[in-house]
Amino acid sequence: MQRMVWAVLIAFAAALALGPWTIRLLRKLKFGQNVYELAPESHQKKQGTPTMGGLLFALITVVLGGVLHFGAFDAKTDMAFGLVLFALMNMLIGFLDDYKKIRSKKNQGGLSERQKLAMQFVVAAAFSAYCYLHPEVGSSIYVPFAGIEWELGYAYVPAMTFVIICTTNGSNLLDGLDGLLASVSSVIMAFFAILALLLATALSGAVQDNMLNMGVLCAGAAGALLGYLRFNLHPAQVIMGDTGSMFLGGLVAGMAMLLGLPLLIPLAAGAYAASLLSVFIQRIYFKATHGKRIFKMSPLHHHFELSGVEETRIVSMYAIVTVLLCLLSFLGLSQ
Amino acid sequence: MQRMVWAVLIAFAAALALGPWTIRLLRKLKFGQNVYELAPESHQKKQGTPTMGGLLFALITVVLGGVLHFGAFDAKTDMAFGLVLFALMNMLIGFLDDYKKIRSKKNQGGLSERQKLAMQFVVAAAFSAYCYLHPEVGSSIYVPFAGIEWELGYAYVPAMTFVIICTTNGSNLLDGLDGLLASVSSVIMAFFAILALLLATALSGAVQDNMLNMGVLCAGAAGALLGYLRFNLHPAQVIMGDTGSMFLGGLVAGMAMLLGLPLLIPLAAGAYAASLLSVFIQRIYFKATHGKRIFKMSPLHHHFELSGVEETRIVSMYAIVTVLLCLLSFLGLSQ
Repeated sequence: MQRMVWAVLIAFAAALALGPWTIRLLRKLKFGQNVYELAPESHQKKQGTPTMGGLLFALITVVLGGVLHFGAFDAKTDMAFGLVLFALMNMLIGFLDDYKKIRSKKNQGGLSERQKLAMQFVVAAAFSAYCYLHPEVGSSIYVPFAGIEWELGYAYVPAMTFVIICTTNGSNLLDGLDGLLASVSSVIMAFFAILALLLATALSGAVQDNMLNMGVLCAGAAGALLGYLRFNLHPAQVIMGDTGSMFLGGLVAGMAMLLGLPLLIPLAAGAYAASLLSVFIQRIYFKATHGKRIFKMSPLHHHFELSGVEETRIVSMYAIVTVLLCLLSFLGLSQ
Repeated sequence: MQRMVWAVLIAFAAALALGPWTIRLLRKLKFGQNVYELAPESHQKKQGTPTMGGLLFALITVVLGGVLHFGAFDAKTDMAFGLVLFALMNMLIGFLDDYKKIRSKKNQGGLSERQKLAMQFVVAAAFSAYCYLHPEVGSSIYVPFAGIEWELGYAYVPAMTFVIICTTNGSNLLDGLDGLLASVSSVIMAFFAILALLLATALSGAVQDNMLNMGVLCAGAAGALLGYLRFNLHPAQVIMGDTGSMFLGGLVAGMAMLLGLPLLIPLAAGAYAASLLSVFIQRIYFKATHGKRIFKMSPLHHHFELSGVEETRIVSMYAIVTVLLCLLSFLGLSQ
């Protein structure tokens, strides 16, 4: 527990210290954001804010995770190592997308939706297979509130591939307001850190070490995100980009899977789910009714924005609701 | 632990449900805030916002605490009962102040500083004596980081009286930006709830029950504050008033004392301390230099505001820093 607290504090301090330097570097490399032409009008003033700020918290998380516990490990069964690798692979997809966007100087100039999905599919399927084969994870998942283990068998791999792709895309869609995804994700990471700690106390041996190491990793991510928020809160000096949102999506999905709790994702990360679902519902409704809309704009947070709620208020409420969703998730586990 | 989670969720839901009704009632009673003439200019538009919103979370906390555990108790040794009573006494002082302000239609028309201090002194001294005489509290306090118990003897009562008055006034001074005191205090309350839970696991019998009950009370306060924030975040629809800030100051000071950890207050509630100290430093420096100022304005949050930091950003950063200060406090305990 002390190690986790240290992880938060050190990661926070590192993010504060490296933040200004990262922003200067991104500016110098001209990694400015090209705002999506269809975003609410008020967002056009965000044009030119340095993007790929996600590199800041991603690298701090990874380095911290490494320093704190990758001293001696077995790469094949070290769950924290698998988790980091998976999050980094997702980050890479986001990075390619960001990079192409910057080069093309348009928000829509990144990877095509098909290219992105194909890459996500490969990474997601590979990690699902890793979990399936991992002696401490396997193919059975816990059903919250029901309190039973659900053995998925071979279906685990395609099902989890789907879960991962939904999570990373949800996270990606949620990244639309200053500080939104970072604050929501810091809460989820803190929750996962505590969960890992609680689970670890009931275990012993290598599994326990794995849990604790993953807990430290999540704690570090939470701390780094809080530090990153110093620069990302409204008015944002830096934006995380797909680089950051894909990393976070990967971290959330991967962590939930390694804990055997992928069904917690839509609850604890309800903010991700709301983004994804609102986009889907909007599209389907739009097609079915030949042009009508349920939400003023999707994802959901833009709907609130266009309804006149202040950006900072939406962000705070998303964070608060995420705290409560995590507490609800906790109740779902302690049946 | 489950009971605590329920306390948060129920208190949150209650605050959401009762919030609009409370605001309507306060409006009807014409309990509007009269903004201090010397506050930053931008605050003048807050004129007329209903005040005494603190009643919302205070009453929810108290009722919830009552329902959850005052079934059978010994009023003389029930620490949660003592805590609630103490917080309510402080709330009453704040309420009188608010009420007089509203009647006089001026921000400075409340109780005189001397009247307020006299009342605070009586309440603080009484509670300090209660703790001194309580078989499970007594006159020794824990020194964080040093890891020793410090036996204060008779000095406990005057020393703690001083600590309480500093805390409630710090809390009172911190209540200057939309959502500031409520978000900072919700973090502190959550921290105290977790602390009580951790301490309880090492105990048994009546002390354990006392700890757990206080933990539930703090969890309820945290939940009620999160719900209250729905209405208090910028732009605020309601303000807690001295009614709320004195209640919270009392709750923080009282809880820390009952845990035997009053020395944690300046660290965990560092935001309170910063408000109080900045006002003192400003005054002393102003007198010593015959008119120079260290801060553009005190308390500290107004200094940041006049330095051009957005109000919402100051509030978020105060909340984030409080999270980290609570984690640091935790390190100070686990020596």
